[in-house]
Order: sequence, then C-alpha cells, then structure tokens
Amino acid sequence: MDFQARQTKLREHLATTRFDGLLISHLPNIRYLCGFTGSAGFLLLEESGSVFFTDVRYDTQAHLEVKSAKVVIARKSVLPAVADTLGRRRKRPGGTIIGVEAEHCTLADRKRLKDLLPAGIHLKESAPIVEGLRVIKDAGELKRIRAAVKLGAGIFDRALEVLHPGVKEVEVAAEMELAARRGGAEGMSFETIIASGPRSALPHGRASEKRIRAGSFVVCDFGVILDGYCSDQTRTVWVGDGQSAGSKAARKAYKAVLEGQLAAIAAVKPGVSPGDVDSAARNVLQEHGLGDYFTHSTGHGVGLEIHEAPRVAAGQRERLQPGMVITIEPGVYFPGKWGIRIEDMVAVTATGCEVLTPTSKGFLAV
Amino acid sequence: MDFQARQTKLREHLATTRFDGLLISHLPNIRYLCGFTGSAGFLLLEESGSVFFTDVRYDTQAHLEVKSAKVVIARKSVLPAVADTLGRRRKRPGGTIIGVEAEHCTLADRKRLKDLLPAGIHLKESAPIVEGLRVIKDAGELKRIRAAVKLGAGIFDRALEVLHPGVKEVEVAAEMELAARRGGAEGMSFETIIASGPRSALPHGRASEKRIRAGSFVVCDFGVILDGYCSDQTRTVWVGDGQSAGSKAARKAYKAVLEGQLAAIAAVKPGVSPGDVDSAARNVLQEHGLGDYFTHSTGHGVGLEIHEAPRVAAGQRERLQPGMVITIEPGVYFPGKWGIRIEDMVAVTATGCEVLTPTSKGFLAV
Repeated sequence: MDFQARQTKLREHLATTRFDGLLISHLPNIRYLCGFTGSAGFLLLEESGSVFFTDVRYDTQAHLEVKSAKVVIARKSVLPAVADTLGRRRKRPGGTIIGVEAEHCTLADRKRLKDLLPAGIHLKESAPIVEGLRVIKDAGELKRIRAAVKLGAGIFDRALEVLHPGVKEVEVAAEMELAARRGGAEGMSFETIIASGPRSALPHGRASEKRIRAGSFVVCDFGVILDGYCSDQTRTVWVGDGQSAGSKAARKAYKAVLEGQLAAIAAVKPGVSPGDVDSAARNVLQEHGLGDYFTHSTGHGVGLEIHEAPRVAAGQRERLQPGMVITIEPGVYFPGKWGIRIEDMVAVTATGCEVLTPTSKGFLAV
Repeated sequence: MDFQARQTKLREHLATTRFDGLLISHLPNIRYLCGFTGSAGFLLLEESGSVFFTDVRYDTQAHLEVKSAKVVIARKSVLPAVADTLGRRRKRPGGTIIGVEAEHCTLADRKRLKDLLPAGIHLKESAPIVEGLRVIKDAGELKRIRAAVKLGAGIFDRALEVLHPGVKEVEVAAEMELAARRGGAEGMSFETIIASGPRSALPHGRASEKRIRAGSFVVCDFGVILDGYCSDQTRTVWVGDGQSAGSKAARKAYKAVLEGQLAAIAAVKPGVSPGDVDSAARNVLQEHGLGDYFTHSTGHGVGLEIHEAPRVAAGQRERLQPGMVITIEPGVYFPGKWGIRIEDMVAVTATGCEVLTPTSKGFLAV
C-alpha cells in the first residue's frame, strides 16, 4: 500500500483548508494512512510530516506496521503525548488550528485534549476528509477487496453443504465462519445473518438457535475481513420443495427482487447518482407491487469498513466515480412470513461496473 | 432482566442533576436499559418515561426486544425523529436541558441534533452515568457472565486438542471459534489472540498464518459473547518439551507471573482500590526482577462490553464493590523472544472475590 501517496493527497487537500494539521482518531482512517492495525492510537498529519501515537501495548506492533509516520509510544495515556507534541511546535502568529474528525471525535476526547493544550492551539471540527479519499479505492485496495469477496463467496458454498431442514441457524453460521478462518480471514465483517422462516423477514436477523424448517426462505448475509478489507454478500435460498404450491408466491417475489437487483447493477456507471441506482431497483419492485416491502436502501460503500461512503439511497446526489465499491442489495420483507434479499458487491469502472461477487443468483431450493 | 429497575435507578440519579432528560446513544447502555440488541438507535430517558428511536430495518426487532420504553420507528434518519419528539415537549420556563453522553456522542451528531432542535432545548455534556450503574452487575447479569465464562473456558479445552507444533495460529483460533458458536455464542468478544514464539511477546498479537513451533510459548487470549455478555481469559502454554534446558527460564518466569496473578486475586475485596490490586501483581513481578517486562495494567471491568469500568491500573482509586466483575491479567514480555500472560475473570463478593474462570493455571507443555 502506498501510504505516502495517500498522505500526500491528504496534505494537498489540507493546504486548501484553514487547518495547520489534522488529528485523526478513526482507526480505519489511521490504517488507511499509515498501516497501523491495532485498536488504539492517533495520527497527527501536518505539512511537515506525520506522527503516530499509541500506548505501550502496541510498541512492537506499531514499529513493525506504521509507515510514513514517526512513532511515539505514550508511557500512559495517548492524548497527553499528542498534546505534548503539539505544544512543542513553533508558535504561529495567528495561532495554530488543528482539525479533529467531527464524525468520530467524542465530546469528552475533545475536552480532554483542549484542557491539555497550551494557549494558541485551537481544535476545530473537520469534515470527513479521509473518508473522502477512501471512497475511491486504489489498485492495492481493489486487489484486496477482490480477494475478500472471493473468500466470502467461498464460505457460502460451505453454507450450502450444511444448510438443510433441522439444522440450527447458528450451526450454518459456525461452519461458514470456520471456512472463513481456514481461508485466512481475520474475522467476519459483521455478525453473520442466517435468518430462516419468519426471521427472514427481519432485515438484520443474525443467526439464532432456531432450527431451519422446510417451506420458507433462509436469508444468508455474511462477510469476511481479509487483510483489513471487508466483503459483504447476501443470498436467499428456499428450503424444501421448490416446485410446491407453497413456493409459488416465493418464486415470484424472488424473481422480482432479482430483477430489481439486476436493474440497479445495470444503472451503475460513472456520473450516475446513488439515488438513481436506488430508484432503478425500487421502480422494478414497485412495478411488481412490492415497493412497500422494500423497506431499506439499496446499498452502501464497502472497504476497510463494512459501511462506508457512498450511501446508495434515495436522494443521494453525489456522483459515482470509477474506483468506488458498493453493495447492491434490494430486498422485500413480509413480517411473520418470510423475506428475500440478494446482494452483490460491485466496483464502478470507467464505463459501467464490474460485479465482484461470483455466486449465482437463480432461485435455489435446498 | 429488570429494565424498569435499572431505569428507575437512572431516574433517581438524574433527579440529582440539572438534566431534564438523558439522550443515550451508546448501544451497550441502550441494551442495558431497554433490551435492544441492534446496531442503531437512541434512547431518550425522561422523568415521565422513556422513548426508543430506531430505523425501519429494526422495526420488528425493536418491538420484540424493547422493554420499558415506547418505540418510535423513524421513517428515514433517527436524529430528526428524536428532535421531533423533544420539540413536542411542553416548554419549561427556564429551558429544557437534555444530557448527551460525552464519552460517546460525536461532535458531528451533537451539531446535527442541535441544528434540528427548537429554541429552549439545550444539549449538555453528561458524565458516564449509565456506565456508573453498569459497573455493579445485578443477579441477572452475573448469571449471564458466569455462563459466558464457562463457555469461554470450554473453548480453551478445544484449543488444547488442536494446539501442536506445525499447526497455524489461525487454525487454533478457528477451532475455538467454531466451538464457541456450537456452544451458542453470538460471536467472539474480541479478535482471538493466538500468539506463538516471538509473537507471544506482542500483548495484542492476534492469530496469524504463522505455524506454531516447539521451544516457545503460545499466548491464547480469547472471549465469547453469550446472551450479550463477554468473557475474557488468557492462558499461556509451552510448546515442546517442558523439561528441556530451554524451558527452564520459561518455567521460572511463568511461575512468577502466576504468583503475581494469585497475589492480585488475593487482594480483591470490597473497599480496596483497583490501584492496590495492580500493585499486588506488580510488586511480585518486581521482586522477581520482572517489573520492567510487565508493560500493561493488571485488568479491566467486563460485562456487556469487553472493556468497561473499572480500570485495574496504577493510580485508580475508586473502591471495589460487591458485584463488580474484573479481569486479573498480569503478563511479562521479552521482545523477540516470548511472552506470558495469565488472565481470569473474578467477581467481587461481600468479603473478597470469586474466581469465575475454572481453567487450571499450572505450567503446561503441549
């Protein structure tokens, strides 16, 4: 990963603002800019260079991982070390302005830091500048995302081997997670959702002790973290006889969701707004009389975080650009009955998009 | 869980402050007070009652889970729904003061909410009041914590079955995580640490692709989440001949860490400060000439979160009280060589403490 290039871009942006430096507290942003993968630290980025601060637990790890930044190991708390470094900077006539990430910095941390700083250094809220860079994935990131998506898709193959009537939802999740670990995953990008029967109508129905029964859908929504990058995929399968009378309405709704998902994917290209991609899926479901059952938005960006910019939702006007990676995941939910969701990850290309998720999407009965 | 009793305690506390209500954004605090287990929401607690706000994804789940609070499903974003509810409150002559959790509320969320609120409603920073209640576990919580610790200990038995020279660290982690899932865990309370050889000297060396080799330690630090509550345990085992010449210094250091850990446990009782518990472990390691290698603090509270109050660290003066649950986890680390950590969870009782973790702690060679 070219951390120096990312920091250079951020410095170029910083030069257009009133900030003399940016204090980055959001861990995915820190990882993006200097490679640190631990769970505590701050990165101070200034025109003259960068300093990464962490505590003694991460002494060895920080020195191994952190690139393009000086490493400071705080003896006790990290914030006093940050304040100490800032306090030793040459005083600027009009005062020094340090940006803090408004979307991540807590009221308490800002107060603590403010109380530690000498006069003449001012903390000001900064917009999500680093997220603005992260939204366009570079080649190194796309490579890692592809690998994560491939591994994620592979664990669904494992799910299909064990997913049968009588098996508990958590057992399916457990087998998938074992396969993820065996494939090198650091962990899951969110709590695995295996939601069967009426639970499939819960958009966020994580795996429970419930046994899967025939005659309904199972929504499987899952993702792995590989080399820091997240995958996110959903497949919905019918359990039992896929030709039975009971499955007829299910097949029809499934076909409509898939049609909506394909329409949204077809709409993805540079210059189109995420809101228009959302509409593409929503219009199809409305034509099928299912608009009221599509209760969430169409998707979201994915990368170092499972949910990041852009949101693929109604009213989102920011234009899609090559290098963005988003999910396309329409669904319909009938409370008390069942639900369906189909989700792929796609990368925006120069002319359209590339579907990263390789798993087939036809109606499947197991 | 007696959510009403918890809310009553919070209201009693609130009555002693300047706040007319408290807006709770930290999800573990929300779960503690009303039972919601999802990943997005706000709880507004006022003298007259409580209102829980979430979005459409959690419609069914919120109505199933939330107790002792009215449920409001926001059509789009949640904050405007919160502002709308607050705006419809009867105006108080001197204005209404709503506390926001300073340790969790971001600068951006506070600004967004402030901009949505009508005149006369003021947001003020609140101390971690709910965390102050959560530090003392009630009977329902202790029961759940015991169950989580038991399951956590069980997965270490599985680790011992698979932990041999030549096996990858991640394979051990994977087998443990599968056992956790099979035992009903919702997930792991943190990324499983299986750190072998020189990696055992990294206090936070999560499982890697490295193969475990004979002639060194493996630090296994792991925890499960069961019914919302976390377990946390560390055991360190020697790989290879435990009677070899190379293991002699290892045995000696192991014995010192264990002695320090037992001394800290012996120090735990109501009225003692966490700082004194930390000293009890630290003094023993200093007597053995290992003080400089014990680079972190002795422990931390555990409950709905893997790290919560109190910190068991030098200088912490808040007194231990019955119902607190903490880890006792001294360790020593020799960079480039190996490390040792031994960690149990203990519950403070009326007269001392109860060690919750059942796993034996003698020097073990595998």
